[in-house]
Amino acid sequence: MATDSKTQEPIINTLVVIGLGLIGGSVSKGLGVRGAVRNRIGVVRDAQSAELAVSLGVVDRASTSLEETVAALSEGDVVLIAVPTLAVAGVIKRLKPVLPQGVIVTDAASVKGSVRDVAVDIYGYMPTHLVLGHPIAGSEKSGVTAANANLYEQHRVILTPEPDTAPEALSQVEAMWQALGAQVIEMSVAEHDQVLGATSHLPHAIAYSLVDTLANDLHNPNIFRYAAGGFRDFTRIASSDPVMWHDIMRANREAVLQSLDLFLENLNRLKSAIARDDGDYLLTTFARAKSARDLYTQLGGGSHSESE
Amino acid sequence: MATDSKTQEPIINTLVVIGLGLIGGSVSKGLGVRGAVRNRIGVVRDAQSAELAVSLGVVDRASTSLEETVAALSEGDVVLIAVPTLAVAGVIKRLKPVLPQGVIVTDAASVKGSVRDVAVDIYGYMPTHLVLGHPIAGSEKSGVTAANANLYEQHRVILTPEPDTAPEALSQVEAMWQALGAQVIEMSVAEHDQVLGATSHLPHAIAYSLVDTLANDLHNPNIFRYAAGGFRDFTRIASSDPVMWHDIMRANREAVLQSLDLFLENLNRLKSAIARDDGDYLLTTFARAKSARDLYTQLGGGSHSESE
Repeated sequence: MATDSKTQEPIINTLVVIGLGLIGGSVSKGLGVRGAVRNRIGVVRDAQSAELAVSLGVVDRASTSLEETVAALSEGDVVLIAVPTLAVAGVIKRLKPVLPQGVIVTDAASVKGSVRDVAVDIYGYMPTHLVLGHPIAGSEKSGVTAANANLYEQHRVILTPEPDTAPEALSQVEAMWQALGAQVIEMSVAEHDQVLGATSHLPHAIAYSLVDTLANDLHNPNIFRYAAGGFRDFTRIASSDPVMWHDIMRANREAVLQSLDLFLENLNRLKSAIARDDGDYLLTTFARAKSARDLYTQLGGGSHSESE
Repeated sequence: MATDSKTQEPIINTLVVIGLGLIGGSVSKGLGVRGAVRNRIGVVRDAQSAELAVSLGVVDRASTSLEETVAALSEGDVVLIAVPTLAVAGVIKRLKPVLPQGVIVTDAASVKGSVRDVAVDIYGYMPTHLVLGHPIAGSEKSGVTAANANLYEQHRVILTPEPDTAPEALSQVEAMWQALGAQVIEMSVAEHDQVLGATSHLPHAIAYSLVDTLANDLHNPNIFRYAAGGFRDFTRIASSDPVMWHDIMRANREAVLQSLDLFLENLNRLKSAIARDDGDYLLTTFARAKSARDLYTQLGGGSHSESE
């Protein structure tokens, strides 16, 4: 499909990707392969990264100057901010004085409320051409060398438009992700952060905490030695990048705390039931959870996603 | 390897398997394929199950009378109790009056302390020919039709001998599992229940509770809709058999509560750190957990096991 659609008319004239890691690099590479963008420019930290990104075909050219690169854009061009969650604020701050009228800005951070709040802080209002988004895709790999033109094929991308978002900006960002084969969904910032807080951020907090408990609190040097396969799957996400997840927990603090509180209440009820040997409670809860989990699987839940 | 070793001398004259589910059925089928036992008799609930087990080659013959079958055994024969954890007590009670001298009894329950306590209750002491064991293997499949002659190949089996256990009984049970290709490990009952409580029973409690929280406490009908791949792996064990896990939580209550308390303390510390925006705590904890998890993977942890 990628090569068939090479003949399509470009939907974006110039795309600037700030941060050429796995996420940003894969967008740029994928749009290039599909002929969906005329010029692809990467903004990176140093000359060496710039050279590497171009030699890998991830971008057409790369610059170390965000300001110069962005100032040269025109109406309808797109800037994708693809830096770690807590670094997005600094980029928006630097963009504001140089961004030409009508240039569309979008991002790929895992938390949306913190980015919106930062933008409103900096601008005093929500910019009409800032469209917040979050591709539900990833990989245990990272960096520009991991850029994958097909990373977003059949993955979901959540966009969280605000009341003031310009319709043409929203549809341009939507078209960009669709060109990459993604399924675009819209929801509110609050719902995005609640859903991801509960189904992604909370499980990561639990997995890190469980592994830490067993490794450091239980005082049994053999504890991992006899752990079976269920444990391996259950704790795989505790191998995720600590810096990235530190960012996410801080950026989505309220939603994470809300779902964490509900989970702690539920787990404390389960603990009490075990302590008082309440077989009915255990059986009812386990059966109800199994039904919910089996239903999720039947719906094809998460079948194409790798992380986050 | 299975067929090559068919020419070996049988190590067991008669094996009686009480309960022909996945676990018991796979032992009997595997020993039969390997020529490691002369007569394989299954004890099942009804005539229909008996017929099915024989027609599948899982046993040479099957009976619905535990008492008659066991009373006919001789010294050195082996009885494997392969019923659900909380049903083991009833079987030991029925075995006591009919078990001939020198017949070796072993089990496959996921918790060992509860089985030992039941045996000591029934006998007034720990029988010398009762060798408790737990194969760390399983599958999402169940029942006699799922019996798999190679289920235990390269899997670990934990035996938990007591001070009074007869050496010849222990070595016979060890030889049985080794004939199936398993790696036999010995540890104390207390250590087994602590290790499995922490690395298997606790994660199952957490997974059931997390799915239950999201499905029933969060009041967001879309909650599972946008969950990504990490969630799928993390919650797979919440699809396990509720009855089996209800049994295990009750049987290993003390060890489960002990590790659950440690986990709740750790998770509450993490929650406080998120609440007070303590980035150092988050980064340190996540990095420490990731190191422990990565080390476990490098050690080949759980690489051949499916469940429990």
